[in-house]
Amino acid sequence: MSAETVTPAVDHYEAVKALGTSPLWQYFGELFAEAPKNQAVPYVWNYQALRPHMLHFAGALSLEEAERRVLMLVNPGMTEPPATVNSLYAGIQIILPGETAQAHRHTANAFRFIIEGEGAYTTVNGERVHMRPGDLLLTPGWHWHDHYHEGDGPMMWLDGLDYPLINALEAGFFQLYGQRSQPAERPDDISHRQFIHGRLNPLWIQPDPVNSPIGNYPWTETERALASIGDDADGSRYDGVLLEYTNPHTGGPVMPTISCRIARLRPGFNGAAHRHTSSTVYHVVSGSGRTEVDGEVLEWGEKDVFAIPGWVGHRHINGSRSDDVLLMSYTNEPVHRALGIYREEHLD
Amino acid sequence: MSAETVTPAVDHYEAVKALGTSPLWQYFGELFAEAPKNQAVPYVWNYQALRPHMLHFAGALSLEEAERRVLMLVNPGMTEPPATVNSLYAGIQIILPGETAQAHRHTANAFRFIIEGEGAYTTVNGERVHMRPGDLLLTPGWHWHDHYHEGDGPMMWLDGLDYPLINALEAGFFQLYGQRSQPAERPDDISHRQFIHGRLNPLWIQPDPVNSPIGNYPWTETERALASIGDDADGSRYDGVLLEYTNPHTGGPVMPTISCRIARLRPGFNGAAHRHTSSTVYHVVSGSGRTEVDGEVLEWGEKDVFAIPGWVGHRHINGSRSDDVLLMSYTNEPVHRALGIYREEHLD
Amino acid sequence: MSAETVTPAVDHYEAVKALGTSPLWQYFGELFAEAPKNQAVPYVWNYQALRPHMLHFAGALSLEEAERRVLMLVNPGMTEPPATVNSLYAGIQIILPGETAQAHRHTANAFRFIIEGEGAYTTVNGERVHMRPGDLLLTPGWHWHDHYHEGDGPMMWLDGLDYPLINALEAGFFQLYGQRSQPAERPDDISHRQFIHGRLNPLWIQPDPVNSPIGNYPWTETERALASIGDDADGSRYDGVLLEYTNPHTGGPVMPTISCRIARLRPGFNGAAHRHTSSTVYHVVSGSGRTEVDGEVLEWGEKDVFAIPGWVGHRHINGSRSDDVLLMSYTNEPVHRALGIYREEHLD
Amino acid sequence: MSAETVTPAVDHYEAVKALGTSPLWQYFGELFAEAPKNQAVPYVWNYQALRPHMLHFAGALSLEEAERRVLMLVNPGMTEPPATVNSLYAGIQIILPGETAQAHRHTANAFRFIIEGEGAYTTVNGERVHMRPGDLLLTPGWHWHDHYHEGDGPMMWLDGLDYPLINALEAGFFQLYGQRSQPAERPDDISHRQFIHGRLNPLWIQPDPVNSPIGNYPWTETERALASIGDDADGSRYDGVLLEYTNPHTGGPVMPTISCRIARLRPGFNGAAHRHTSSTVYHVVSGSGRTEVDGEVLEWGEKDVFAIPGWVGHRHINGSRSDDVLLMSYTNEPVHRALGIYREEHLD
Repeated sequence: MSAETVTPAVDHYEAVKALGTSPLWQYFGELFAEAPKNQAVPYVWNYQALRPHMLHFAGALSLEEAERRVLMLVNPGMTEPPATVNSLYAGIQIILPGETAQAHRHTANAFRFIIEGEGAYTTVNGERVHMRPGDLLLTPGWHWHDHYHEGDGPMMWLDGLDYPLINALEAGFFQLYGQRSQPAERPDDISHRQFIHGRLNPLWIQPDPVNSPIGNYPWTETERALASIGDDADGSRYDGVLLEYTNPHTGGPVMPTISCRIARLRPGFNGAAHRHTSSTVYHVVSGSGRTEVDGEVLEWGEKDVFAIPGWVGHRHINGSRSDDVLLMSYTNEPVHRALGIYREEHLD
Repeated sequence: MSAETVTPAVDHYEAVKALGTSPLWQYFGELFAEAPKNQAVPYVWNYQALRPHMLHFAGALSLEEAERRVLMLVNPGMTEPPATVNSLYAGIQIILPGETAQAHRHTANAFRFIIEGEGAYTTVNGERVHMRPGDLLLTPGWHWHDHYHEGDGPMMWLDGLDYPLINALEAGFFQLYGQRSQPAERPDDISHRQFIHGRLNPLWIQPDPVNSPIGNYPWTETERALASIGDDADGSRYDGVLLEYTNPHTGGPVMPTISCRIARLRPGFNGAAHRHTSSTVYHVVSGSGRTEVDGEVLEWGEKDVFAIPGWVGHRHINGSRSDDVLLMSYTNEPVHRALGIYREEHLD
Repeated sequence: MSAETVTPAVDHYEAVKALGTSPLWQYFGELFAEAPKNQAVPYVWNYQALRPHMLHFAGALSLEEAERRVLMLVNPGMTEPPATVNSLYAGIQIILPGETAQAHRHTANAFRFIIEGEGAYTTVNGERVHMRPGDLLLTPGWHWHDHYHEGDGPMMWLDGLDYPLINALEAGFFQLYGQRSQPAERPDDISHRQFIHGRLNPLWIQPDPVNSPIGNYPWTETERALASIGDDADGSRYDGVLLEYTNPHTGGPVMPTISCRIARLRPGFNGAAHRHTSSTVYHVVSGSGRTEVDGEVLEWGEKDVFAIPGWVGHRHINGSRSDDVLLMSYTNEPVHRALGIYREEHLD
Repeated sequence: MSAETVTPAVDHYEAVKALGTSPLWQYFGELFAEAPKNQAVPYVWNYQALRPHMLHFAGALSLEEAERRVLMLVNPGMTEPPATVNSLYAGIQIILPGETAQAHRHTANAFRFIIEGEGAYTTVNGERVHMRPGDLLLTPGWHWHDHYHEGDGPMMWLDGLDYPLINALEAGFFQLYGQRSQPAERPDDISHRQFIHGRLNPLWIQPDPVNSPIGNYPWTETERALASIGDDADGSRYDGVLLEYTNPHTGGPVMPTISCRIARLRPGFNGAAHRHTSSTVYHVVSGSGRTEVDGEVLEWGEKDVFAIPGWVGHRHINGSRSDDVLLMSYTNEPVHRALGIYREEHLD
């Protein structure tokens, strides 16, 4: 507008900075990229290499010192704050016979997927939920939970949480229960006994549209599902026989921010490639194989964990001619769908 | 009304009648009653008494003559058109070894609950669904279905349909398939193998928010659910351990107009009394007992069917000290809820 | 099965009848028709012919005698019980200056659409809602309502109710308030003042997902909407500029069983023909025209009411080259959609 | 930890770090805080101070150089990447007569709220949407939009976007249209003419459950709403007469990640204090007042913008005895609700 001959332009930049603003034109390309720029990189965590160190820390560090004894699986691209992929975190937790992990709750949603050991349980809002390898246990946001191990050997599991998302949204709360362990207030394992058996819903229980009421999706049920579906079902071109753990009151994901899944890649499965905005963490329950990621190859074996960031093209391959691969996974796809930003592209 | 001698009042009444109207004030109390007036009455159909006649008709009448060989369970208060309770119909169907019931479809939603016999199957939209006693098979509205019996003895089942509702809403269509039987186009029993096993949903299948995709809820799964829930679950004061068969994609009823349920009344169960606007048909899977209905007592035994009309106070009792009662039931409660007219009153 | 030589077959028919059953094969074609059989017929009610009789009854019959002074528009095909089309009822009500219609409530959902007169109001759950010609007033199920006329001339309106549906579902309750008129407990006309103005929702009001919170959709707003949309909007091939009155908390129909609508047929509008399972009642707000119904022609003029039963092919025509037709209508389409039985067929 | 002299503990820490992990116990308190730690601080941007600089840049920098000529309102606590509060961004944009801002689209959802000027329009997916002061224009995610100014003076508006959220979720895409301006393909301003007038929904338009179909919520309508609601409506204890701009097809927010609102604080309004996890940006449409924030006081005047981060207690005050305050605001509350993490606390 005005012709301001005396005052040099640089003053304006300083002036508007002092007024709490910045010129968008200096940031535009950075803020509006042609496609998403992921912080995370594709990565494999080797379980067998980590295991001895887990055992070491189990001996060296008490749960009283550690609150939870966990190695965080930190993506090389997401170290500060630590995360595994966008929105999601994975860790390997270990607890020894006789130990207890004290009761607390947090707004972050969490699950654990049991890798090895028996004889432990988690008390969730007053219900003791026992765990065996392959079980998926839920502790949705703001549910009290503590762990107790009455078995013999070390107990190890995969922890999955959405705290990177919850913290990014500045909605994280945390609280200690006030005593180390919750008393049992409901029959043991009642939540999954009431729901997990099939498609019959107890009508005396008030539906929870937000979180699944199921404390444990036992591996025996997961195996049974895979057997039931059999070899003649179609499956997905990308993920094989891909099943989602569901909230029985909605048919949707178990928690609003995390979809948990199990996939069976049949012998020789050579998946089609695709990419999507959502990010995924995989845990190899059994078998071994590889995932081709934008030209690179991730080799993975039993019990390993691997990360596929969003908008990275990927293809899963089970190279074995005889053995299934079973992949547990979890993803922030429900977040992308709820906010209208999920996008997928078929690459084959 | 007033006596008007010059222009007599009767003229106006005649005149408005000729114009297609009627005075509301002559009908008001009839149209707006203090509480619902049910056409149906509480009633028990005795299976053992009906059975020999079913067998007779099976011998005397071919399926070519009968389209479907069914005795309709007609409520004494709802004979024209025949119905079992408001909105709902029940019938007992029989099919003999080697017979086929030709393929047709209708907008009425239907299920069958198998009472006796083995070796038959229903083809539903190209999928063969095998049936055994206690199985619940769905044929949602406008799904092709035909029956075939390859077993030995007679096969008998309970048919449940909503044609009284569909016809009352003038939305009923019917169509013959054009050939007697549908070809099998999908793997046998694939729909329940993919879904019924637990709470894992196949992600390669497009969700159907209207009807359950499950062709059969087998009795083996129902028994397993009841065993899983066990003796320490609360259950409902009115109906004991009352479970609803659900659509895995919504957690809601299997079809939009019919909720199918199974209840376990533990030995000595003495239910609380209540009433609700929805109507219910019960089928006694095992055990015997009685239902107190507004002072009257309905005694029922194994395989019987009984009807509890809407807004009738009722209380279920299992008089046995040792045996469970298992009651399959179905109700139009989803209709009342969808339309905002469900009402319930606790009487104890 | 068994060879029963002595007992004649006729005994079996009698026997099963005595056991509360009927052979389906004797009813099959009647119960499962190829297409819906409507009770209602297409019909026009002539307002100008009815009006003098309405005035007569207004003088001859007090509201104390009549509860509500209404001529029911009874479809010639639906006289017992009286209804206008499937699920729905229409009536013309008259109230005189100084009269009150006493407070009551019923589970049937109701609206009134004002035809002539000014100065009356309805009190709905404690809010006085004033009425002027063209206004649409709601009294959803179980809302207290009474009428009071403080103006000069007679006040006449169209009543629309779903009692045929509610009674068919045996869910009808009725209650008197206990005193003739409700006290005013909220500011006059507050519900529409808070909502009707546009697309801004008051956040201090708890959403009602079942019924619209709006007491009155005033004609001034409806006219404004039609003017705003203008001549360059597409409109529907079948119904012209067809607008649905909505619940501001859902965007859906004002009540779960009734969709209320206003249509503008531009001069010369010659609609395409279609048919659908839902039934419709029309009220001609202004203009005149005709509807072709399966070969027959219904001629209608200002203030008339006409009925189009379900699954009847129909086409609306505005024969005028200069004047709009404005058609208010209401339909049970939400019921058909909620229950998964809505079907539509394009005939042009 | 234990002192292990032979195999020193530090080896294990190094070893697990090399394996891509970190001990959770070294991060626990940082990751799980008792309450959210906000990056943003409460802050006021002074419009009158910024305005001359905006005018300067308008003269000094062409739109060809700038893509968009905007000063970002960067929260002192959120400079890298720049954001205004958690999830949300605000900027002040200026465009001069005769200028065009070229057509592009992005997955970030955006709106503009016009501050001053007339004669410009935005073309959104082929529809020209004209703007006047107080208008709220939407450009939901992935909608093409370009700006054109045919008026006389400078045109300035507030831009609101969710790119901080979209980028944090790594779901951001950006695309140029390929030519500078979109051709007009629909009647001008048709989207708001069809919807904004009140509560009537065009039935020929396919509902969009994700984004509002309305291009512009004009100020004339907002004023009308405030006048319609009047002085006798309750309003909220915290925010006065607080109205949400809605999607007419759902009654929910205009876009899945942003709720836009207008509030009227009556003369002398002294709001109650509360806090919630969601974050809010306010723009003062008229009047002046202050917001008490955890002891601090933010003074704001007409056209200023101010930020209230999540979980910060706040209370709004209109100190004037005669004049209303009108506050436009937007918030990420829909995100918190969709993900089940919304929490609110009443402080008075």
